[in-house]
Amino acid sequence: MKQIKKILLTEQEMPTTWYNIAADMPNKPLPPLHPGTKQPLKPEDLYPLFAEELAKQEFSTERYIEIPDEVQDLYKIWRSTPLVRAYALEKALDTPAKIYFKNEGTSPAGSHKPNTAIAQAYYNYKQGIKRITTETGGGQWGTALSFACQHFGLDLKVFMVKVSYNQKPYRKLMMNTWGSDVIPSPSELTAAGRKILSEFPDSPGSLGIAISEAVELAAQDPLTNYSLGSVLNHVLLHQTIIGEEALLQMEKAGDEPDIVIGCFGGGSNFAGISFPFIRRNLKEGKHTRVIAVEPQSCPKLTRGKFQYDFGDTVGLTPLLPMYTLGHDFQPASIHAGGLRYHGAGVLVSQLLKDQLMEAVAIPQLETFEAGILFAKTEGIIPAPESTHAIAQAIREAKIAKEEGKAKTILFNLSGHGMIDLFAYEQYLGGNLQNFELSDQEIAQSLNKLEKLM
Amino acid sequence: MKQIKKILLTEQEMPTTWYNIAADMPNKPLPPLHPGTKQPLKPEDLYPLFAEELAKQEFSTERYIEIPDEVQDLYKIWRSTPLVRAYALEKALDTPAKIYFKNEGTSPAGSHKPNTAIAQAYYNYKQGIKRITTETGGGQWGTALSFACQHFGLDLKVFMVKVSYNQKPYRKLMMNTWGSDVIPSPSELTAAGRKILSEFPDSPGSLGIAISEAVELAAQDPLTNYSLGSVLNHVLLHQTIIGEEALLQMEKAGDEPDIVIGCFGGGSNFAGISFPFIRRNLKEGKHTRVIAVEPQSCPKLTRGKFQYDFGDTVGLTPLLPMYTLGHDFQPASIHAGGLRYHGAGVLVSQLLKDQLMEAVAIPQLETFEAGILFAKTEGIIPAPESTHAIAQAIREAKIAKEEGKAKTILFNLSGHGMIDLFAYEQYLGGNLQNFELSDQEIAQSLNKLEKLM
Repeated sequence: MKQIKKILLTEQEMPTTWYNIAADMPNKPLPPLHPGTKQPLKPEDLYPLFAEELAKQEFSTERYIEIPDEVQDLYKIWRSTPLVRAYALEKALDTPAKIYFKNEGTSPAGSHKPNTAIAQAYYNYKQGIKRITTETGGGQWGTALSFACQHFGLDLKVFMVKVSYNQKPYRKLMMNTWGSDVIPSPSELTAAGRKILSEFPDSPGSLGIAISEAVELAAQDPLTNYSLGSVLNHVLLHQTIIGEEALLQMEKAGDEPDIVIGCFGGGSNFAGISFPFIRRNLKEGKHTRVIAVEPQSCPKLTRGKFQYDFGDTVGLTPLLPMYTLGHDFQPASIHAGGLRYHGAGVLVSQLLKDQLMEAVAIPQLETFEAGILFAKTEGIIPAPESTHAIAQAIREAKIAKEEGKAKTILFNLSGHGMIDLFAYEQYLGGNLQNFELSDQEIAQSLNKLEKLM
Repeated sequence: MKQIKKILLTEQEMPTTWYNIAADMPNKPLPPLHPGTKQPLKPEDLYPLFAEELAKQEFSTERYIEIPDEVQDLYKIWRSTPLVRAYALEKALDTPAKIYFKNEGTSPAGSHKPNTAIAQAYYNYKQGIKRITTETGGGQWGTALSFACQHFGLDLKVFMVKVSYNQKPYRKLMMNTWGSDVIPSPSELTAAGRKILSEFPDSPGSLGIAISEAVELAAQDPLTNYSLGSVLNHVLLHQTIIGEEALLQMEKAGDEPDIVIGCFGGGSNFAGISFPFIRRNLKEGKHTRVIAVEPQSCPKLTRGKFQYDFGDTVGLTPLLPMYTLGHDFQPASIHAGGLRYHGAGVLVSQLLKDQLMEAVAIPQLETFEAGILFAKTEGIIPAPESTHAIAQAIREAKIAKEEGKAKTILFNLSGHGMIDLFAYEQYLGGNLQNFELSDQEIAQSLNKLEKLM
C-alpha cells in the first residue's frame, strides 16, 4: 500500500489573506498603555517605531487582511510548506494516534519567522524607511529579517542575545551573509545595554534586554524603525498563513485534528498554527484542543500572572496586558533561545485567560529526547524550540495509546536544527540539565510587578 | 500578474523507476578491471564490498530499474523536490533567459545524497549486512548515509577528509546526531592512512585517501560493506530520480530546457539531473546542451586524461576507465570539498569522450560571487559545490543577454550551504583565492599514469 506522506498546496491554492483573531474573540484584548501616562495607545502612537500599516494592523478588528502581492510572491520561495504525516514516529511510539506536522523549517531562514519578516520589511520599505533594528534570541528571527531586509534594500542591525551569539556562530554568519550587522546583547552601544552590563557584567542576555537596545536605537532616528519577531498582534497575524494552509491541507488529507500543538516563546508560531483552528472552534462549533508548549525554565503561561507589563527588560515599550513572569525575569540559558522570553503575546494571553486554549511546560531533557527520536524517525533534526511541540505531541500520542483512541494530532515544526547542532552535541554528551523554578523564585519575580500599575 | 514560482509533483505523480543510461549509450562503458590481474570484473567480484543487488546494478543494461517500495516511502520525506523558477535572479541579471533550478537542498541531509544513501542502506540491510564504512568530502555524503543507516539499523563509520572535518564541525555533529562514528582522514586506523601520514604528516586528506581507508576496513569483515557516494554506475543510477522528476516538472511548467547544468565531483548530482535529458537527446532527437561544471583547481574533465585509473589514492579499488588527473593528485583545499576528487565516473567519462555532454571549469571566487548573488535574490544560501552550477547558469544567462535570446536554463541546486557558512565568512572577508594549475603540474600528475596499464 502506498501511503501519502506529504500534503502540498499548489500556488493557486495558497491562502491570500491573513486571519485576525481579534475579530472573533469573545473578550477583545485590552489595549496597550503608554508606559508614562498609562493611557491607552492609538495606532499613531506607534508610528515613531513601526510602519504605519503595521501599527494599524496592531489595532485592527478586520477578520481577514489581504496579503500584498509582493509578499505573496516572496512567500512562494518556500510556501506552501508541507503538511507531513509522521508515519515513522507513530510506528516508533506504537500509538493508534495519527501524527501530522507542518514543516516550517523549509524556509530560507529555516523557520516560520520569514512569514512576518517579509511582511514587515515590505511595509517599511513601502513607507520609505531606510534602516531597521531588531533583537534575536535563537537567531531564527534575525536570520529571517536579514533575508527580508536585504531583499528590500533596508539596512539591518540585529541585537543578538549573548548566550545565543556564543552558542550559534553559524546563525551570526547567516545574518552576515545576508548583509546585516550583528551585535551581542547586552552591548555598550545603548544606554539600556550599559545599564545591564554595569549591574550584571556577565549577563547572558535575554530577549527583553535585546528589545530594549533595539527600541532605544530606533527611537533616535526618524528613518530607522524597529521590528519585532513575536508577541505583537501584527506579528501573530502574519503567521496565520501557517494555520490557514494547514486547514486546507488537513482537508486534502481527509482528516481533522483533535489536538493542535505549537511551542511557545512570544506566541508567533503557536498563533500561526492554531488561530485558524480556534476560529473554527468559535465560529463552527468545533472542539479542537489547542496547546501551547513552553519550557519548564520560562513558564509564563503555566506559572506567570496575567497583568500589564513591559515587553522589554528596561521598560521602554508600551505596557501590554499579558501573562508574564516579570519584565526583568532572567531565564536559564537553555538551548531553545527563542523561548526565553518573560511574557506572552496579548492575543494569546487573553485566549488563555478565557480558556480557549491550554498551556503546558516541559523540561529541557524531555524535549531533546523527543528531538532525537524525531530526527531518527522522520529524518529532520528539529530546532530546540520545536522539540517542545514534538515532546507534547509524543505525550498526547502516548495518552492516545493508553486510552486506545485513534486521535489526530497536528503540531507545528517551527524550524530545523541544522544551525543548533552544538545543542544536540551537549545533550548527547550528557551535559544538559533541567531547570525547575521554585515557587519562591516565581513569587519574587512576580512581586516586583505589584508596583507597576 | 501572479507568476508560478515552484512546480511540484504529487506523490502519485512521482517517478517509480531509476534510469540506467548504459542501456542507451552508443558506446557502452568499458568494464572495470581487477587491479592485480587487469582482467574485466564481473558482479560477483564486487560482492566482498557491495550488496549483491548494487553489484548487479553496477553492470546492468536494463533501461529502467524499479525503485523498491521501502525506498519510495523514504523518498517521500522530502521528494519530490521543488523545481523553482529563479525570477529574482533573472531580474538581477537583466537577462532574457528563463532560469529554473531543481532544489535538492530540501532533503534531511541538505543535499541530493540521500537519493542513493537510502537505496544503498536498504539493499545492504536486506542482505543482512550489519556495518558500513564510507568516506565523505564536504560532509554531504556522510550525513546522508548516517541518516539512511540509522533508519535501517546499520552501524556506520565515516572517514571524513581532514580539511573538511576541520572546516565543517556541524557536519560531523549531524552525523553524530544520527549515530555514526566520524574519523578524520588520513587516520592511524588503517594501513592506507598510516602510509599517507608517514609521507605527508600534514596532509589535508582527499576523497581518494578516505576511500582507501574505508575500503580497507570493509574488506576485512564479511558483515561490513563499503558504500560510495558518487562515481560508480549504481550511484549515478539512483540519482536519476532528480532528472526524471525535473522532466515531468518542466512539462508541467510548459517549458523545455535548452541547457542543463550540474556541478561535478564524481558525477552523481550531475548524472542525476542530466541523464534523463541525454536520453531525450539520444532517443527523441532533442538537442538539450548538458554541461558539467568542475572547480578550476580539480579539472579532470577539462584537463585530465581518459584512461584506466584507480578510484582511490592508494590503489585498492578496481581500475576504472575515466577522465582522471591521476589517483594521487592532491587538489587544493577549496571549500567545495565534494568536488575535490581526482576522477570522473565511468558513465560520465564515456559520454564526455563521445561528445554527448560538455564540461567547463570555474575558479573559486567566481563561484562564491554567484552563491552570494543567489542567496540575495532567491533566498537560499547554496552549498559551495552547488555554486559552481549557479556560476555556469549565470554565464549562460549573460550569453543569452548578449545574443538577445530567451534561452531556458535548468541547473541542479545540489544542496544548501547552511553547514558551510565559514566558507562564506572567508569569502566575504576577502580570504579566499583561485587555484589555477600550470600545464606542468597537470602533466606531472598524469605522467605517473603511464606506468599503470
